[in-house]
Amino acid sequence: MTVRFGLLGAGRIGKVHAKAVSGDANATLVAVADAFPQAADAIASAYGCEVRTIETIEAAKDIDAVVICTPTDTHADLIERFARAGKAIFCEKPIDLDVARVKACIKVVEETGAKLMVGFNRRFDPHFMAVRKVIDDGKIGDVEMVTITSRDPGAPPVDYIKRSGGIFRDMTIHDFDMARFLLGEEPVSVLATAAVLVDKAIGEAGDYDSVSAILQTASGKQAVISNSRRATYGYDQRIEVHGAKGMATAENQRPVSIEVANGDGYTRPPLHDFFMTRYTEAYANEIAAFIAAIEKGTKISPSGADGLAALALADAAVQSVKEGKLIKIG
Amino acid sequence: MTVRFGLLGAGRIGKVHAKAVSGDANATLVAVADAFPQAADAIASAYGCEVRTIETIEAAKDIDAVVICTPTDTHADLIERFARAGKAIFCEKPIDLDVARVKACIKVVEETGAKLMVGFNRRFDPHFMAVRKVIDDGKIGDVEMVTITSRDPGAPPVDYIKRSGGIFRDMTIHDFDMARFLLGEEPVSVLATAAVLVDKAIGEAGDYDSVSAILQTASGKQAVISNSRRATYGYDQRIEVHGAKGMATAENQRPVSIEVANGDGYTRPPLHDFFMTRYTEAYANEIAAFIAAIEKGTKISPSGADGLAALALADAAVQSVKEGKLIKIG
Amino acid sequence: MTVRFGLLGAGRIGKVHAKAVSGDANATLVAVADAFPQAADAIASAYGCEVRTIETIEAAKDIDAVVICTPTDTHADLIERFARAGKAIFCEKPIDLDVARVKACIKVVEETGAKLMVGFNRRFDPHFMAVRKVIDDGKIGDVEMVTITSRDPGAPPVDYIKRSGGIFRDMTIHDFDMARFLLGEEPVSVLATAAVLVDKAIGEAGDYDSVSAILQTASGKQAVISNSRRATYGYDQRIEVHGAKGMATAENQRPVSIEVANGDGYTRPPLHDFFMTRYTEAYANEIAAFIAAIEKGTKISPSGADGLAALALADAAVQSVKEGKLIKIG
Amino acid sequence: MTVRFGLLGAGRIGKVHAKAVSGDANATLVAVADAFPQAADAIASAYGCEVRTIETIEAAKDIDAVVICTPTDTHADLIERFARAGKAIFCEKPIDLDVARVKACIKVVEETGAKLMVGFNRRFDPHFMAVRKVIDDGKIGDVEMVTITSRDPGAPPVDYIKRSGGIFRDMTIHDFDMARFLLGEEPVSVLATAAVLVDKAIGEAGDYDSVSAILQTASGKQAVISNSRRATYGYDQRIEVHGAKGMATAENQRPVSIEVANGDGYTRPPLHDFFMTRYTEAYANEIAAFIAAIEKGTKISPSGADGLAALALADAAVQSVKEGKLIKIG
Repeated sequence: MTVRFGLLGAGRIGKVHAKAVSGDANATLVAVADAFPQAADAIASAYGCEVRTIETIEAAKDIDAVVICTPTDTHADLIERFARAGKAIFCEKPIDLDVARVKACIKVVEETGAKLMVGFNRRFDPHFMAVRKVIDDGKIGDVEMVTITSRDPGAPPVDYIKRSGGIFRDMTIHDFDMARFLLGEEPVSVLATAAVLVDKAIGEAGDYDSVSAILQTASGKQAVISNSRRATYGYDQRIEVHGAKGMATAENQRPVSIEVANGDGYTRPPLHDFFMTRYTEAYANEIAAFIAAIEKGTKISPSGADGLAALALADAAVQSVKEGKLIKIG
Repeated sequence: MTVRFGLLGAGRIGKVHAKAVSGDANATLVAVADAFPQAADAIASAYGCEVRTIETIEAAKDIDAVVICTPTDTHADLIERFARAGKAIFCEKPIDLDVARVKACIKVVEETGAKLMVGFNRRFDPHFMAVRKVIDDGKIGDVEMVTITSRDPGAPPVDYIKRSGGIFRDMTIHDFDMARFLLGEEPVSVLATAAVLVDKAIGEAGDYDSVSAILQTASGKQAVISNSRRATYGYDQRIEVHGAKGMATAENQRPVSIEVANGDGYTRPPLHDFFMTRYTEAYANEIAAFIAAIEKGTKISPSGADGLAALALADAAVQSVKEGKLIKIG
Repeated sequence: MTVRFGLLGAGRIGKVHAKAVSGDANATLVAVADAFPQAADAIASAYGCEVRTIETIEAAKDIDAVVICTPTDTHADLIERFARAGKAIFCEKPIDLDVARVKACIKVVEETGAKLMVGFNRRFDPHFMAVRKVIDDGKIGDVEMVTITSRDPGAPPVDYIKRSGGIFRDMTIHDFDMARFLLGEEPVSVLATAAVLVDKAIGEAGDYDSVSAILQTASGKQAVISNSRRATYGYDQRIEVHGAKGMATAENQRPVSIEVANGDGYTRPPLHDFFMTRYTEAYANEIAAFIAAIEKGTKISPSGADGLAALALADAAVQSVKEGKLIKIG
Repeated sequence: MTVRFGLLGAGRIGKVHAKAVSGDANATLVAVADAFPQAADAIASAYGCEVRTIETIEAAKDIDAVVICTPTDTHADLIERFARAGKAIFCEKPIDLDVARVKACIKVVEETGAKLMVGFNRRFDPHFMAVRKVIDDGKIGDVEMVTITSRDPGAPPVDYIKRSGGIFRDMTIHDFDMARFLLGEEPVSVLATAAVLVDKAIGEAGDYDSVSAILQTASGKQAVISNSRRATYGYDQRIEVHGAKGMATAENQRPVSIEVANGDGYTRPPLHDFFMTRYTEAYANEIAAFIAAIEKGTKISPSGADGLAALALADAAVQSVKEGKLIKIG
């Protein structure tokens, strides 16, 4: 069976998914829609699909599933429309920046019985998946302490930051999801600090660029997250899980792994400098998992509930910074 | 411009090239030929190309280039036929196991002005390319000592070994080419030893499974090669170049790079266990370089002369083992 | 010049310092005192020094400096006595578990003009010193985020824990000092969480075994600390400093650095399993720095004020856990 | 029991052994002799021993063992004298540069029943010892291929080289011994190449500075050795042992193991730059093993026969380079 896709949104992340869908033997990219015809045309010609409107994709008989890559403030509406249209839905994170809106959207998804996957791509990185498997196989015993380091090579434009919901909802949200993925227990409390160390303009926009957070579960398991909007050495993405019987880590990835030695020392090249090259395999695995869940009728993960849970942690982190105290979840 | 390909041979390595050609934005796989119709059909249906005979591909107007993946003893004949047919030719190594036959074949290629690339895929591995670039950029000064370690996860069937021309012509030949690629000077002498340590059946077939060789250039630069048909830890492929100003190395690659620590120590997973997964990027880069040379009309490398030079080193190594002495080249 | 030492306390850490003093070309170990004559005798015979009482060491003309390795609750009293006796004083951390008592003790030290070094040995580890030098040399720009991981191979006896002042004052205090050493700015707030994951008996004794803490300075620099009383893979001691221009890390140390590869992967041995072998060089460098400061009359670091500052952070961490909020310092 | 030592020769390597003997709890350095009184005085005052002549050490009742660190051309004579004087003898490599002289000397040692250890310090490096233990424990199965890389940070003075017996007898001899230590079988053939790439003056002195060699045992096990008199990145000392069931490696050692990351990549500091700092522990372990063999009356290893075997391999390598052929041993 082949799953026939419509792509909503032909921007940067839309291109990533167009490539992933096209490269999957079990999928066909049938159509793409975008408010900017040129963007849609570019994908259409690169991957041999049609340009359509959202409305015609909604009504199309030859489309089984959509990938939503439009601006964040359209996500919830589109999820509801396509859930009602009977399509399987893959939506980039977040569903919405407002918890109430996310809950309402998930309710529609449940009522319609639609399949919804939320785009936490890192769960599908082969190295992080392997760490999770080590945990599942019991090789490091009960998880005790999770450490997640995420640093971007550079900050996005301030205009983006203003619309992003803030660093905790835009960037740390991936780490909150990863913490849930690795802890195996729901966090019940959040502590966070935040500062502006990289760019004053970010502070003037009401956001932070350097943050630290601690999550704790009911049984006392802890996850520590460190984020920065700057890293001169590349896209820094590491996880470490310490358990009762051992520790599992996934180190950074680099495109070229040579070493040059001389009187100054031994030097390896910088890391990947962009999430698209760093997570190429993750994006491919993610869409493959979505397709497999559609074909086999299995439970989709990460689901809308996962998107909601990560957002709730982000909201709690914002509140923790503002109020200088531990925030309880749920 | 798009280069239109015919594929000759639909076996294991044929599939590798079918995938590489199909995945290249500047190429189209038009047709495939194989003595076994089922093998050709499999590739035709997977990549949407036609099944044709070698003869029809030879005569076809809609084919610009061929990839020769047939058995070794057909390579030279096919190169000559397709050179005369005016096609660009990519041929898997070796051109032939006999130096005289290779020379005759290259003569035909030169007379026809055909473009011929020989498949030394490792030159296109991104890590090895990066080492070469370090050399070219002068970062380690004049090359002095090259060290190449190649070990296969396991020995091929003895039937294969009998037809292979022996380990030096079948396996070490890649390292002889890599040594030439890295030394930047032609080797003028070869010393080699060889033994049967892995499988007695290999010895009974008249071949070796564990060999060491030293090449030396006129100015005294040295390359040391270590080969084994066995490596429990995966496909071991390392290069090291020591120069007057420094050293560059390319370490082994593994599909998953996590680490698990416990009372037994810190463990990373084994290496890739197969050349196809280890050299996926190399095969794609290789065909892209072939296409680029066709489109731009630039010199092709590695050429037939490179194939001949590596074979001559392999022959000299065989002779060195037999006669217990240093063999001069050229 | 040779500094003549008296050693107070001949227990486990006393032996470490006896060895460090004896091995230093600028020091002589003259005498040792301990409530248990056998312990004192053992050191006396191993290092060729006399057994004396604390009183006779206090009054001795042939002793310039003392190393205090007695139980914690005697530290402040002994510091005051030997400050008044005109000796230079090296005291194991902590000065006392009570901030008011530490302040009173430091006041006596200041009034007498005595030299006092507090034993934060990790500042003298060659790898951590090298990280600090990288910072001082401006190679990573302004420090932004410090990450400190400290995990003990196993928990101490519960009897020890009961007298220890709790994990924050006993174990994390080293990391609080290290954070101050690396941040280059005083922390102004502390957030901490704590749990019992390793041993219920530790919880029954009113303490924790797994803790996380975040410190923040006035300018927003952050330090994240992760502690556990258990690590199957050895004595886990890592620091990472992320700055505006780069990052510096000191990885774990192991006594033997080989690697064994087979079908299960590539395995390096576990880490050092004990602070004494891990920090052998640090203890030697520490006493050498103390001697150098005495001889040259230079400022001693880490000082009593450093001991006090680390204790204040530990107290704040305890309060943060209890009250579930951010605690301001100073 | 304490072994009482006399030290013959107070030069660079003499100081290394003076320190090792003095630091050993089971040894006392009683006396030192050197043709240059100042050199002897320096060691005498640093370690609190007497200055004596070789004759008085020979006749002394208070000396059980000697360490011979005099110039190479005196080694064999001194070994014979002290063997006859009933002392245990530790002699720096080589016993002599002439095989016949070495054999004669060993005969005297055997006739007198003297204990003789030859100074192949690398056998006592904790990392190399650990590799050997991995082999002995059967963890990598039968040894098949040994790879040894030794490169000095810089070439010694040409005057030294003229008296050294040439690179194979002076430098590679350590690797020949290491190959024997790791192969577990005697090499029966040697192939070698050699060139002058580092310094023409070395060539003018009749020696080489860059050499490669292959040893092979009767069963076909191979050892490949790569040597250079130059390495900008420090003292390069690596071993790798590939066996039927796996591989064991000992990587290079560096004094400080930090890493600094920025836009240029991830850089670790250079290696140790000198054999004395690289092999500090090896020298201490070596003298401890000598002392233990004296005290327990156990067999000494490496023995005079080991010194002879390594020299024979060095001679064969010289001959292989000259004659351009494989040289059989024994």
